[in-house]
Amino acid sequence: MLDVQSFAAGQWIAPGAGARSIASAITGEVIAQAGNDALDGQAMLGYARDVGGPALRKMTFHDRARMLKAVALYLMERKQALYDLSYDTGATLSDHKIDVDGGIGTMLVFASKGRREMPDGHVYLDGGPEQLGKTGAFMGRHICTPLQGVAVHINAFNFPVWGMLEKLAPTLLAGVPAIVKPATATCYVTEACVRMMLDSGLLPAGSVQLVSGGLGDMLDHLGCQDAVAFTGSADTALKLRGNPKLMEHSVRFASEQDSLNASVLGPDATPGTPEFDLFVKEVHREMTAKAGQKCTAIRRIMVPQAQVDAVIDAISARLGKTIIGDPRLEGTRMGALVSNSQKHDVLEKAALIGAEAERVYGDPDTVQIEGADKDAGAFVPPMLFHCADPDAAERVHDTEAFGPVSTVMPYRDLNHAVSLLNKGKGSLVASVITNDGDVAREITLGSAAFHGRLYFNNRASMGEATGHGSPLPHMVHGGPGRAGGGEELGGIRGVMHYMQRTAIQGSPDILTAIGQQWVPGAKEISDQAHPFTRSFNQIELGETFNSPSREVTLEDIETFAHFTGDTFYAHMDEEAAKANPFFPGRVAHGYLLLSFAAGLFVQPDPGPVLANTGLDNLRFMAPVAAGDSIRVRLTVKHKTPRNEEYGEVRWHVTLYNQNDDVAAEYELLTMNAYG
Amino acid sequence: MLDVQSFAAGQWIAPGAGARSIASAITGEVIAQAGNDALDGQAMLGYARDVGGPALRKMTFHDRARMLKAVALYLMERKQALYDLSYDTGATLSDHKIDVDGGIGTMLVFASKGRREMPDGHVYLDGGPEQLGKTGAFMGRHICTPLQGVAVHINAFNFPVWGMLEKLAPTLLAGVPAIVKPATATCYVTEACVRMMLDSGLLPAGSVQLVSGGLGDMLDHLGCQDAVAFTGSADTALKLRGNPKLMEHSVRFASEQDSLNASVLGPDATPGTPEFDLFVKEVHREMTAKAGQKCTAIRRIMVPQAQVDAVIDAISARLGKTIIGDPRLEGTRMGALVSNSQKHDVLEKAALIGAEAERVYGDPDTVQIEGADKDAGAFVPPMLFHCADPDAAERVHDTEAFGPVSTVMPYRDLNHAVSLLNKGKGSLVASVITNDGDVAREITLGSAAFHGRLYFNNRASMGEATGHGSPLPHMVHGGPGRAGGGEELGGIRGVMHYMQRTAIQGSPDILTAIGQQWVPGAKEISDQAHPFTRSFNQIELGETFNSPSREVTLEDIETFAHFTGDTFYAHMDEEAAKANPFFPGRVAHGYLLLSFAAGLFVQPDPGPVLANTGLDNLRFMAPVAAGDSIRVRLTVKHKTPRNEEYGEVRWHVTLYNQNDDVAAEYELLTMNAYG
Repeated sequence: MLDVQSFAAGQWIAPGAGARSIASAITGEVIAQAGNDALDGQAMLGYARDVGGPALRKMTFHDRARMLKAVALYLMERKQALYDLSYDTGATLSDHKIDVDGGIGTMLVFASKGRREMPDGHVYLDGGPEQLGKTGAFMGRHICTPLQGVAVHINAFNFPVWGMLEKLAPTLLAGVPAIVKPATATCYVTEACVRMMLDSGLLPAGSVQLVSGGLGDMLDHLGCQDAVAFTGSADTALKLRGNPKLMEHSVRFASEQDSLNASVLGPDATPGTPEFDLFVKEVHREMTAKAGQKCTAIRRIMVPQAQVDAVIDAISARLGKTIIGDPRLEGTRMGALVSNSQKHDVLEKAALIGAEAERVYGDPDTVQIEGADKDAGAFVPPMLFHCADPDAAERVHDTEAFGPVSTVMPYRDLNHAVSLLNKGKGSLVASVITNDGDVAREITLGSAAFHGRLYFNNRASMGEATGHGSPLPHMVHGGPGRAGGGEELGGIRGVMHYMQRTAIQGSPDILTAIGQQWVPGAKEISDQAHPFTRSFNQIELGETFNSPSREVTLEDIETFAHFTGDTFYAHMDEEAAKANPFFPGRVAHGYLLLSFAAGLFVQPDPGPVLANTGLDNLRFMAPVAAGDSIRVRLTVKHKTPRNEEYGEVRWHVTLYNQNDDVAAEYELLTMNAYG
Repeated sequence: MLDVQSFAAGQWIAPGAGARSIASAITGEVIAQAGNDALDGQAMLGYARDVGGPALRKMTFHDRARMLKAVALYLMERKQALYDLSYDTGATLSDHKIDVDGGIGTMLVFASKGRREMPDGHVYLDGGPEQLGKTGAFMGRHICTPLQGVAVHINAFNFPVWGMLEKLAPTLLAGVPAIVKPATATCYVTEACVRMMLDSGLLPAGSVQLVSGGLGDMLDHLGCQDAVAFTGSADTALKLRGNPKLMEHSVRFASEQDSLNASVLGPDATPGTPEFDLFVKEVHREMTAKAGQKCTAIRRIMVPQAQVDAVIDAISARLGKTIIGDPRLEGTRMGALVSNSQKHDVLEKAALIGAEAERVYGDPDTVQIEGADKDAGAFVPPMLFHCADPDAAERVHDTEAFGPVSTVMPYRDLNHAVSLLNKGKGSLVASVITNDGDVAREITLGSAAFHGRLYFNNRASMGEATGHGSPLPHMVHGGPGRAGGGEELGGIRGVMHYMQRTAIQGSPDILTAIGQQWVPGAKEISDQAHPFTRSFNQIELGETFNSPSREVTLEDIETFAHFTGDTFYAHMDEEAAKANPFFPGRVAHGYLLLSFAAGLFVQPDPGPVLANTGLDNLRFMAPVAAGDSIRVRLTVKHKTPRNEEYGEVRWHVTLYNQNDDVAAEYELLTMNAYG
């Protein structure tokens, strides 16, 4: 028997008084125990706040992204051990891959996004500066900094690894320590994964702790810098959410709850189309993967009235070929539910649905189970229901049997489909299988506000589509109403759940000092050598090059026009140009100005600037006519390391005319050698 | 006596059973009554959901932005009537301006941002597309669409106009109808403003309703598409937040609560510096404006130990010159609290603070009141306290006397200042008066996570700074912990509180149809005339021009280098270029490529394209060497009307070499005539 331990304040703690026993989903025999009433929740919170938080906050976003990558690669090498443990949860090998590889992959995406989309510093900038007065002497912008408390992650039983890592990756990237509390039924898999991460030595002390078993009164001790992220049932969520201490201190509480997710067969997707077959395949997968124990699984199957029979037949045929049994057997396509109590709950909910809908596939009494004792293990068959009058029905829209249970219901037209979708009162995901963009747009306008995710699939995307039920690290996961109202993932959006957004107001110099990004109006350093001669490590924010000026002659404009072929009338024809609302007469090409500007600021010899790799936010503000002169100001705005050899420098560039009017403004990107 | 009416389901409803009387803050005499137990909350919700919501959602973001502007201008012409009514709330003319002009100004900022930063459509795009597979056949992106329910706004008494409009502007811009419930004490001012807005005929029926008096059981009938935005005390917030129906349906609940906001005098800001005087001026203003009844007012004044006496003397001197009395008198600088019950509460809280701190200015018993009866009206003097040991004290960090009450406390060093700031356990705003960027950065890193806003001021910004206590429409307002954990305003961020963010996944064509922004990989329409010959109204998303190709010769590179002066070695010196990690040898200038590209796609004759006004997200992906050829693909990505004459077209541009490798990618902006 496994003694599943907790990791608290730097110590592994064995099960003790109050421990619960955990049974195998396949045999029903007790295989593990977890929990210890003596666990000191307040000590754990203190350790996270006083040891883990400061250590993580000392690191930059890039440091923490590199750490995530290293941990992910470390786990990747050891994933077989996690697979081996996972069979007793009832899951098949392909379920393990969703869980283990999916979790590790999520960490890798956050590692990559952290490097690419966040600064190598301690303050994340949310949006650009806002000028709050007439001259720009007082500016505003928004920053995000890590919460100085602890994130308590309360996870569901269905994904013991992914469920932990999808919360942990954005939390650690934000710079916040976590206390992970997996569902007890599968906590032995989570414990093994946490042990690997801690053994790796890659995480600072205090950044990850583990509660195997109950949380005790830990939530009563949270405060304004802490956050709770919960995944699980609506009932539990409601209980936790109502904790008076959480409410009193406005503790962030993100909830991701089981919901009545739906899939719609588009009116265009008639039998014989690739979309019809795709629909059947997606529904089948969502019913059987993880034995339907996915918070995103399809519970409501909406099909045009005329296709009801064809859909039921096709899904049933596919379900009929699905071998159910011991997941360790090679041929098994669907394993068991996680526990017999879960099985009991699913059958009870299926009965509720059965009062409003006819069961058209799957009989728990006669189901064939391969390689295991049907009654000892938590086995149920996939069960398909048909609800002929979904407008009158209520249970099919509010009862989630958390297993391989789904209900087919007809719709008359798109409006009707939208109204059925919205009867779920908020879901994690809805999908629509259609090859018609107008159908997609109409359903989106009618129903997007009820869902955290809308998944569209058709012949064009099916080769790469990731599946109705798969939350991806790039996309927001969570939904309104019944789905809990929370958000997770969504790339950097998910990191923000563990950071505080703060509006900052002050002078340009103050904003530059805080954000480590030069703000127009802040100090310019121009008594140095040309900044292009200074390496990435040498140059400072605000270093500025003021170019000499250059006249732009009519001959220049003519030459450029004929050289490039850009003979647009505004450059060539005085009368026609004058008739244009933007121009006083013939003007220089915008690209001529950019090119001359480059000629004015370039340092021709080899030096630290390796290449000009891009340009952002170019706006032409005032036309430059023949005879005008231009000059350029180039200021170091921001620095970001990119690889071992060089980093990116973002330059703020302003092009002035002879009257000091701004002719153009843009940002230039160069790659600069470090040394 | 004023009968303050409600506006419910299209009808004005007079006070009835259960009405409460409202007294003048100046005389204590009853001047109005409000409230009616018979108000039908469910009918109001139904009217908003069934009439107001659909009408608002039919409009585009630009339509709604124009509506906001028109309403704001309509109110601006009538603001004197609102001033006239407001004196009885105890407020002075300069307080009215903060309330009335501030509210109208907030509407105008949202009107402007709606036009500039949101599309003229029904779907707001949050971030760019994410490629979710190898080839780009399956993509993701995030959209925001309006909630399909109703926003219930529960406002505080202190800003009867601004408090309403700062919530209403983002709500209506989002496309969501609102039910406004002002605090009863000053609801007669709000009612007058609502009446003006409805009289204007500019708002669709059902978009704004008003509850003067109590809300009844309205909150019990909210669901997953509704939102509550509350401003007021922590006690009331806690009561509302715990509503079981709100929790059960995960109804959004944003709370903005009074908090223990602080201001820090920087260690550099010694007496004699502009910052010292500025600090005293800011503290004085925050204590006396609106008689200190501002949720952002400075409650805790943190100064270096050595400056405590100087600060107390300077603030006291300034307070001593502040004339308190009937706000209708011209010389009055501070009016009354809103009511005698508020006065009672403030004196009670001041007594709590007095147990830990010495009162060094302001005696309620001897205060001189001009032009009003001190005991009949709700007058109190500004009261300044000094807490010598703020580490031992508790009440000064958790007791908000919602009036002109503030406590000076010493700090030893920046770490100590940070720890005192954070003892507030979350606030709306903290300010730091310093001319030292390092001080600003250190306090930010230590304390930003505890505040919704950090305000810095010094000699450089003081000419334009808007004041510690002023929430601006551009900046987020709200804070963690004690401040309620909510967010309002912050530009378009504030609009998102009334929209649902939904992750969308599908093929590029599906994403294009939904977002009305062409996504790479979606259908290209290239059988038309050159898109530059087609007007704004004619061209469609996906219209594409494929240019002929052009060789880039070594002579071109030489010519361009000498013409522009850009003789960077990568273009001029084969050996040196080869040594650079980015280049295979001498390559064409990036600007040469852009210029040639323009020559390849330009239509030289007058036509609908009026000007190329900008360029975004240019990235050079592969070098182009002498002898390579380039061609260009130009596709209509997005269209946004800009004024009466023309709209902006955003083009997706890809530059290919002769092997169809992407050499560069960017977005081009043109202004196109409509017709």
